[in-house]
Formats: sequence, structure tokens, C-alpha cells
Amino acid sequence: MTLPLEATLRARLGQLIGEELSACEAEIRREVAASPVLLIRDLTEYVALAGGKRLRPILVLLTTRLAGGSAARAARLGCVVELLHTATLIHDDVVDRAPLRRGRPSANARWGDDAALLVGDHLYARCMALLVADGDLAVMDALAAAMVSMTEAEVFQLERKRDARLTEGDYLRIIRQKTATFISACCRIGALAGGLDRASVEALAAFGEHLGIAFQIIDDSLDFDADEARFGKAIGTDLREGKRTLPLIATLERASPEERARILAVLRRPAAGEADPARTERDVVEVQRLVKVYDGVGYAVARAAAYAAEATARLARFAPSAEREVLGLIAEYVVQRDR
Amino acid sequence: MTLPLEATLRARLGQLIGEELSACEAEIRREVAASPVLLIRDLTEYVALAGGKRLRPILVLLTTRLAGGSAARAARLGCVVELLHTATLIHDDVVDRAPLRRGRPSANARWGDDAALLVGDHLYARCMALLVADGDLAVMDALAAAMVSMTEAEVFQLERKRDARLTEGDYLRIIRQKTATFISACCRIGALAGGLDRASVEALAAFGEHLGIAFQIIDDSLDFDADEARFGKAIGTDLREGKRTLPLIATLERASPEERARILAVLRRPAAGEADPARTERDVVEVQRLVKVYDGVGYAVARAAAYAAEATARLARFAPSAEREVLGLIAEYVVQRDR
Repeated sequence: MTLPLEATLRARLGQLIGEELSACEAEIRREVAASPVLLIRDLTEYVALAGGKRLRPILVLLTTRLAGGSAARAARLGCVVELLHTATLIHDDVVDRAPLRRGRPSANARWGDDAALLVGDHLYARCMALLVADGDLAVMDALAAAMVSMTEAEVFQLERKRDARLTEGDYLRIIRQKTATFISACCRIGALAGGLDRASVEALAAFGEHLGIAFQIIDDSLDFDADEARFGKAIGTDLREGKRTLPLIATLERASPEERARILAVLRRPAAGEADPARTERDVVEVQRLVKVYDGVGYAVARAAAYAAEATARLARFAPSAEREVLGLIAEYVVQRDR
Repeated sequence: MTLPLEATLRARLGQLIGEELSACEAEIRREVAASPVLLIRDLTEYVALAGGKRLRPILVLLTTRLAGGSAARAARLGCVVELLHTATLIHDDVVDRAPLRRGRPSANARWGDDAALLVGDHLYARCMALLVADGDLAVMDALAAAMVSMTEAEVFQLERKRDARLTEGDYLRIIRQKTATFISACCRIGALAGGLDRASVEALAAFGEHLGIAFQIIDDSLDFDADEARFGKAIGTDLREGKRTLPLIATLERASPEERARILAVLRRPAAGEADPARTERDVVEVQRLVKVYDGVGYAVARAAAYAAEATARLARFAPSAEREVLGLIAEYVVQRDR
């Protein structure tokens, strides 16, 4: 069943930027088909055309439209941000040794880590070449800064995983840097493409940043609380990988010392050379039970809603318009979504 | 013992661009130390400051000087190309599952594939940000095109490895795309930084391309014929990995049908799911013997010398100068080097 808000949002997007979205999709398909190397085409198509939400191109298209920029250019920039996102997904799955992505074998599971790593690198390079062809240093600067921030946060997260400590502050820093700066950059480049004044560019970038934080908190909450068939991945995947996300951090704060010790033992990552901890299904179910008891997901969703409200507040400086309204709907949807 | 040509070249480089090289080295150290994340600093320092030849920055510095460009900017661009090169080394070792690099454990062996992959990505992003700060679209275009070409060739090579076929034409295409386009881009950006006319920019880029092909052929030949202590890695590494390089391709052309079948059996990569072929030390020694018998290295070195001569010929359009002379010495050294 589709949520009423999802159906509304989909209809509004179709009316407002349906043509631009199709043009962007055509750009993505053209780029994917452009390589002379079969393995690049196959692997990229497999991941880029697997039915992603296209949140990042949608934000580029909407903010460009709000800012009065060129629709054709927005479609090209939307293609670039989706290919950058695709490259990060391919590399993330290698790092996480993920066997699945959107309900199918991941690219690394299907073609090997070596192919996934190299095709990801190739996509990054292609995106840089596309941005050079676009020729706007401010746009490049926004995306380069986002990529620096994202990759730095990925390494920081790895360091922290190994340290087996992660506070709510660390968690927020990581998701801000990893997810929110890129979503913010999508809004920023739309604003820049429309030639908005500096304060308006910053307002749309701040909208994107708060939206991105809310988006990631919900993503992490769905790992505890989603309908697997709709979500497209198995519940508890993050937990089985020992990832500490906000519902778990909130639960750790509220649990008794014995329960906390129990959860930490289940999460503990093995030191180098040590065997994987015995993270049995019973352990996972027990942690999921504690997250329910202490309403870790409720806490996380409330935080996400606050960030989404903060995002929407940044839109107040713009005159009412269909674009502004749909951006607000996206902020609502990001918190309510079930997949 | 140091070769006379190596000593001469080192002395000439010291006189001519000693200061610029120190400035470039300082930029590299500053960039390496700049990250707030310890794992990024440690891993990058480990690879970037491990005593590489700095061929790419040297070419940027010399061509910028030949073209009359700014030394300070050349030092910054030299830092960028060395960090890009560092990122490719880090990722290559993950792809090749290399345990060693320059006689020490590789970054992936020491910190894990996940850390090596992510720090490599971070370095790419940092280089893009540095290029945006430099602000020259022509320079960015040259390096983006080189990265597109390099990464495409890496995937093509992987595809061919799996196919278990590689002709001399495929080999040349791969090393041209993988090594030569990047070395060519280093010469091109020096020429651009000096504001040379189009034909002169192309001449220096062609010098770099031919130099890069010669450089890689010799690199591949040293795997059969180097003094391990000076070379810094074990002889026969490529062979043990089943890589077909020019000395081997030449040997395959010249060997008897029985010998060819024998070599191909040793090289054969296992199909997915199949166990590794029994590539014993006796097999490796036998292939090395056949490469000696048919002078595969002699053939490869002669080809490299021809490319180096072609490189030097491209310098003829420039007036005699110390820079032109040292670029010519580099082309000579690349063929004669023993490490």
C-alpha cells in the first residue's frame, strides 16, 4: 500500500517537474550507455537504473526551478549528482561487504570487489569531467566540498567503529557530513544555477542540510521498524553489522547498566585477527526488543521531525510557489516514509 | 650502486628545480597533515611519503618552467598530481590484493581494504577541491580526462584478465590509457600553466604520452629482470598474478606451440568459483626461463627505447634550454633505469 503523502508527492512532482525528471533520466541512461567498456556499462546500469528514489536530482530540479534557472542544465546537473550518488553506493557496499542492495545482489557480490571499486572510481572521474564541461566553478566547489566531507566522515566512522564508541554527537557529525552535506550541495547547486543572491543560496543549502539529517535518521530507524517487502532490504542489517545508529544510541542512554552491557557485547566489533563475535539471531532479536522497550525509534523519529521542521522554516524567506510547497512536502515525506 | 645517468639526472634536477621540488614536497606534507581524521593522516602519509620517484610532479615543474609559468603554482599542481597518483596506488593495491608496496606492507595489508578504499576516495575528492581552488578549467579538463581514461583502462584490463586473452594491441591500449595519459596530462598542465600556444601544448602532451608508454613497458620488464634490493619489490610479482605484460606477450609470439600452451596454462586465471590454478614456483621459474630464451625483455626494451626516442623528438620544436635537456635526460633514464 502506498502512503497518501507519497501518492500526493508523486502526483505533484509529476505535474511540476515531470518533463525535467524525464530529461534527467534520459541523461543518466545516455551516460550509462556511453562507455566503450562492457563491464562499466553493465555494472553502472545495474546500480543506477535499479529504481532509486532520485531524491538528489529531484532536489536539484526543484531548487533550480525555484531559483529561475535553466531546466536543461538542471537535468544535466541532476544526472551528475545521481551518478556521484551511484558511485558512493557502489563503494559503500564494498566497504560494508553488503550482499544485497534494493533486494538484489549488490554489485560487489555480482562482479567482485575489484570491479566495483574500479567502476566506482570511473564514475567519480566521469562526474568530474561532466562538471568541467558544465564549467561553473561555484557548482564544482559545492560538490567537491561535499565529496571531501562525505569521504572524511566515512573514514571517521570506520575509525569509530573500530574504537567501539560512538556518542549521539559523533553520530550527528557523521550523518551530517556523510548524507546531509551532499543533499545540501544538491540544493545549493540548484540555487546557484538560478543565480540567487547569497542569503537565498545559503537558505536553500540549509534547507538541504536539515532535510538530509532527517532523511538519514529515518533511514537508520527503518532498520528497526520497516515492512521488509516495501523497504527492499532486511530489517536489522545495520544491527548485524554492529552499526550504532540513533535508535540504538537512545536505547543505550535509557537502558539499565546490565542491558547496556548486553547490547554493547552484541555490537562489539572484533579486533584485528580476532574472530567475529558470536552475534546470533537471538542476540539481534534481544537488542531489537530493548530498542522497542525504550522506544529508541520514537526518540529518533522525533529528532528527525525537528530537523525536517527546521528545514521547512528555511523556505519561509521565499515567496509562496508550487516549488516551495513541494519542497515542504518532501520534508514531511522524509519523516513519514516507510521505505 | 647508482647508475651514472641516474646520478647525473639527480644532480641536474637539483640545480634546476631543487627549490620548486622542495616547495612541492612541503605542499604534499601540508596536505597530508591537514585532515582532522587520524586514520586519513596516517594512511596517506604512509603511502605518499614512502619515497616515491615524484616523476609526475617533476614533469609538472619542468614543463611549467619550460613554458615560463609560475613556480609557486607549479608546486601546488605538482602536489595535486602526486596525491592523485597516491590515490591510484592505494586503490590498485586493493584491486591486486598486493601485500607489499615499496618493500613494506601495502596500505590495505596494514589498515584493511575498507580503510584503503575510503582514504583513496577521500584523496580524489581533496584533489578535486584543490583543482577548484586553483580555478583553471583547462587544467581540470586535462586531469579529469586522464582520470576517466585511467579508470576505464583499469576496468578494461580486469575484463581482459577474466577473458584470458590479451594481444600486444590490447596491452598498448591499456598502458597508454592507464599510465601514459596521466603522465601526458602532467606535461600538458605545465604547458597550460605557462600559457604556451596550442601546438606547443600538444607537443609537450605528446612528449609525456610517449614517455609514459616507455616508462610502463620498462616497469613491466623489470618484473622479469631487476635487482630485487634496488627494485623494492619481488621479481615475478606480475607473473604470479597472471598479468600479461609485453615481455611475456613477445615470448608467446615466438615460442613453440607446446611452450605457448605451457605458459598459457600457468597464466590462466581461475573462472568464478574455481580454485586458483596451481601456479607453483617451478611453473614461474619455467616461464621466466622461456622469457629469457626468447629475449622477451630485449624486445620490450627495444620498443620502450623507440617510444622514448619519439618522446624526445617532440621536444625539437622548443629552443635549446636546460629544461629541454633535462626532459630529454628523463626520457633516456626511463629506459635505462633499473628500479
